[in-house]
Amino acid sequence: MLNKLRLLTPGPTPLPEEVRLAMARDMVHHRKAGFKAVLAEVQEGLKALFGTAQPVLPLTCSGTGAMDAAVSGLFSPGEKVLVVEAGKFGQRFTQIARRRGLLVAAQPLPWGQAADPAMVRYALEADKDIVGVLMQASETSTGVLHPVREVATVTKSHGALLVVDGISAVGVSPLPMDEWGVDCLLTGSQKGLMLPPGLAFLALSEKAWERAAKAAPGSFYFDLAGELANLKKHQTLFTPAVSLIAGLQESLRLFKAEGLEAVYRKQWALTLGCRAGARALGLDLFAPKHFAWGLTSVALPEGVDGVRLVQVAAEKYGVVMAGGQDQLKGRIVRVGHMGHVDFGDLLAGLHAFNRSFAICGGFSACDDYLERAMAAYEEALEQGYPAL
Amino acid sequence: MLNKLRLLTPGPTPLPEEVRLAMARDMVHHRKAGFKAVLAEVQEGLKALFGTAQPVLPLTCSGTGAMDAAVSGLFSPGEKVLVVEAGKFGQRFTQIARRRGLLVAAQPLPWGQAADPAMVRYALEADKDIVGVLMQASETSTGVLHPVREVATVTKSHGALLVVDGISAVGVSPLPMDEWGVDCLLTGSQKGLMLPPGLAFLALSEKAWERAAKAAPGSFYFDLAGELANLKKHQTLFTPAVSLIAGLQESLRLFKAEGLEAVYRKQWALTLGCRAGARALGLDLFAPKHFAWGLTSVALPEGVDGVRLVQVAAEKYGVVMAGGQDQLKGRIVRVGHMGHVDFGDLLAGLHAFNRSFAICGGFSACDDYLERAMAAYEEALEQGYPAL
Repeated sequence: MLNKLRLLTPGPTPLPEEVRLAMARDMVHHRKAGFKAVLAEVQEGLKALFGTAQPVLPLTCSGTGAMDAAVSGLFSPGEKVLVVEAGKFGQRFTQIARRRGLLVAAQPLPWGQAADPAMVRYALEADKDIVGVLMQASETSTGVLHPVREVATVTKSHGALLVVDGISAVGVSPLPMDEWGVDCLLTGSQKGLMLPPGLAFLALSEKAWERAAKAAPGSFYFDLAGELANLKKHQTLFTPAVSLIAGLQESLRLFKAEGLEAVYRKQWALTLGCRAGARALGLDLFAPKHFAWGLTSVALPEGVDGVRLVQVAAEKYGVVMAGGQDQLKGRIVRVGHMGHVDFGDLLAGLHAFNRSFAICGGFSACDDYLERAMAAYEEALEQGYPAL
Repeated sequence: MLNKLRLLTPGPTPLPEEVRLAMARDMVHHRKAGFKAVLAEVQEGLKALFGTAQPVLPLTCSGTGAMDAAVSGLFSPGEKVLVVEAGKFGQRFTQIARRRGLLVAAQPLPWGQAADPAMVRYALEADKDIVGVLMQASETSTGVLHPVREVATVTKSHGALLVVDGISAVGVSPLPMDEWGVDCLLTGSQKGLMLPPGLAFLALSEKAWERAAKAAPGSFYFDLAGELANLKKHQTLFTPAVSLIAGLQESLRLFKAEGLEAVYRKQWALTLGCRAGARALGLDLFAPKHFAWGLTSVALPEGVDGVRLVQVAAEKYGVVMAGGQDQLKGRIVRVGHMGHVDFGDLLAGLHAFNRSFAICGGFSACDDYLERAMAAYEEALEQGYPAL
C-alpha cells in the first residue's frame, strides 16, 4: 500500500482506467447486434494499428496461440521455412514449425544480435525450397529490434512469405504491415495494446491468404478462413473473450485520440530516457545498436545477481521488472516501458533499479542519472523518432 | 436505461460484482509470487468444482479450444472414437476428431434426445477398435442432459476413455468426475462459472494422463503435459488471461462460500420454475424428460417465429435469450438461467417471454404463470435436487 505497484515488464503492462472499467461492464452476448457493432469498430482501429487494409482477426488465446495459428494456417507439413532464431521467441517459432511438421532452416544468432537481411537473402538464394521466413519484430527475450523492413524487401524479391511476430512491437514502434510488405503480422493484447493477456490478433496479406487457402488442414481451433468468414459478419468463429474485447474498444479509442505518431514518439522518448539513465549508472546495454522500443535490457556486471535485483525492486519499491530468460538468467534485467507507462513510472523504475543494484552489491557514483534520463527523454520527445 | 440488461442465455452469463471488480484490478505479472498464489488457490477451487483429485488445467481459449485440446492431446491420428452426436456441440466433437485424423464412429441422435447408454455399450461391443467416447454432459443446442454417469459405467467396463464436454454443465448440475469415472472433463468460463468467456478448464483421470503421454504430438499451443508441468510450479505454459483468472479466484470463493450443494439446489429450482412457467403458458418443452439444468428449451407453436421473439424480448424488455441453432432456428427459444441468475431474473424473463410471445402472434390464456413458476421454484428449493 505504501508504494504503488508499477509493472515495468515487457508484458503484461499496466491498464488504463478506461480499459479496466470497460472490462467490468455488464456481460453481453457475442452473437447480438451490440457486440457486432463493437467488433466492427475495433476492426477499424486494428487495421490502423497494423497499417493494413486487410482484416485483422481477433483470436482468443495468448500470443503464442497466434504464432501457432499463423504457422499451422500458412504452411503444410513437409514445407520448408527459415526461422531467425535470435532469442527465446525465435526458438519458439522453430518449435512450432517443427510441431507442424515443417522442415526448419534455423538461422541461430547470438542472443543480443539482430537479424541480418544479407544472411536471410543468402539463405533464400542457397535453398529455393524455403517458402517462408519467420521472425520477431522485437525479440522480447533480448530487447533487440530486428530490421523487419529490410528483411521484407528480401522476402518479397524471393517470393517467400514473411511472418512477423509483433507481440512486443505492435503499438510500440512503427510496423506498417502493408507498406513494408509483411505477409503475416500478429500480436498479443498485453503489451503495446494496454490490455490484459488473453487476446491475440493476426492479419494476412493477399498473398498469405492465397497460401492459407492451399495449406493442409491444421488446428480446428485456429481456423483462419473460418475466422475470416465470421469477421465479415462482425462475429468470431467461437465465443470470444467478450470483456477483453470491450477493453480493446477503449484501448483503440485511446490510440485514435492520441494518434499513432504521438504514441511512437512517447515510446521512443521513454526508450532513450531509460537507456540514458542506465548508461549514466555506468551499466552496459545488452542491445547496444538494434534496440527495441519499450524494453531496455540492462547487462549486469559480474557479481550482481539479476534474479535477486528484480526481487528486491519488487519487494522494496513495488517496481516489477523482468529478469533474463534461459541463458541470460541473472545476467540481465529487462526494464519494460511499453504501453500505459509514462516518464513518472520510468523515474520510479530507475530509482528502484539503482537502489536495488546497490543492495545487490553493484556500485555507481553517478548522482544525476535521473536528470540525465529525463534530459534524454525530453530531447527525444522534442526531436521525434527516426524512420525505421 | 429504463430496463436493466438481463442475460438469460446459455452463456455468456451475468457477472457478479466481485468478479467485475477483480478484473478491473491492477495488472500483475504471471511469473511472480503473487500470481502463483492465485493459481494455487484457484486450483483447489477447481478441483472441488470438478470433483477430482487430479489437477485442473486452466487454458486461455474458448470452450471449443479445450475440446480441441482434449481430442488432440488424448488420441492419435488413425485411432477410432465414438461421438454421441445429439446436437450442434456433438457435431463439433466429430469435426474436431476428424480434423485430428481420427476415425469417427458417430452416433447421431434426433435433436432433443439424450444419449442411450445401451447404444454406447452396443457400439463398444461391436467395434473393439473404439478407444474413446466423446460426449456432452449438457447439449447446449437442445437443452438435453445426457446420462454421463451411466455412460461412464459402460466406458469403464470396456476400457474406453470417456471425454465429457461439461461446458454448460460444470457448476450447474452435479458432475463429480472421479466418482462417476469420467476420464476427461472440460468446461468454459462463461457459463456456470460466472465469468466472461476466454478461459477453459480441463482435467484428466490417471488413465487419461497415461494415454496423453503416448499420443502423437498434436497442437503446440494445447500441450497438456507442458501445462501440467507448469501447473506443478503454479504457473501456466504460456501467458494466461490474468484478469480472467483474477475473476476466477472471486468466482470460486463465491462457490466455496455457498457450497456446491446450495448452488445445484438453486439451479435445479430455477430450472423447475422456468419449466413450470413455460408449461403454464401452454408451451411444450423441447427436452421433456432428460433436461439440462440452467437452460430451458421452449418449443414454439407453428406460426410463432423464435428469431423475432428473441429480438422483441431484447429490444422491449432488455431480456436476452437465445434462439435455436441450425435445424432448430426459429423453432425453439433457449432460456438460460445458469450462473449468476436468480428468481427475480427468471420472473423478468418469463414476463418478457410471454409478452414477446403475444406480440409474435402466440396466444396464452393463463393469468397465473408467474405464480406457478414461483411455486415450482419454491417447492424444488425446499425438496432439493434428485440424484443424477
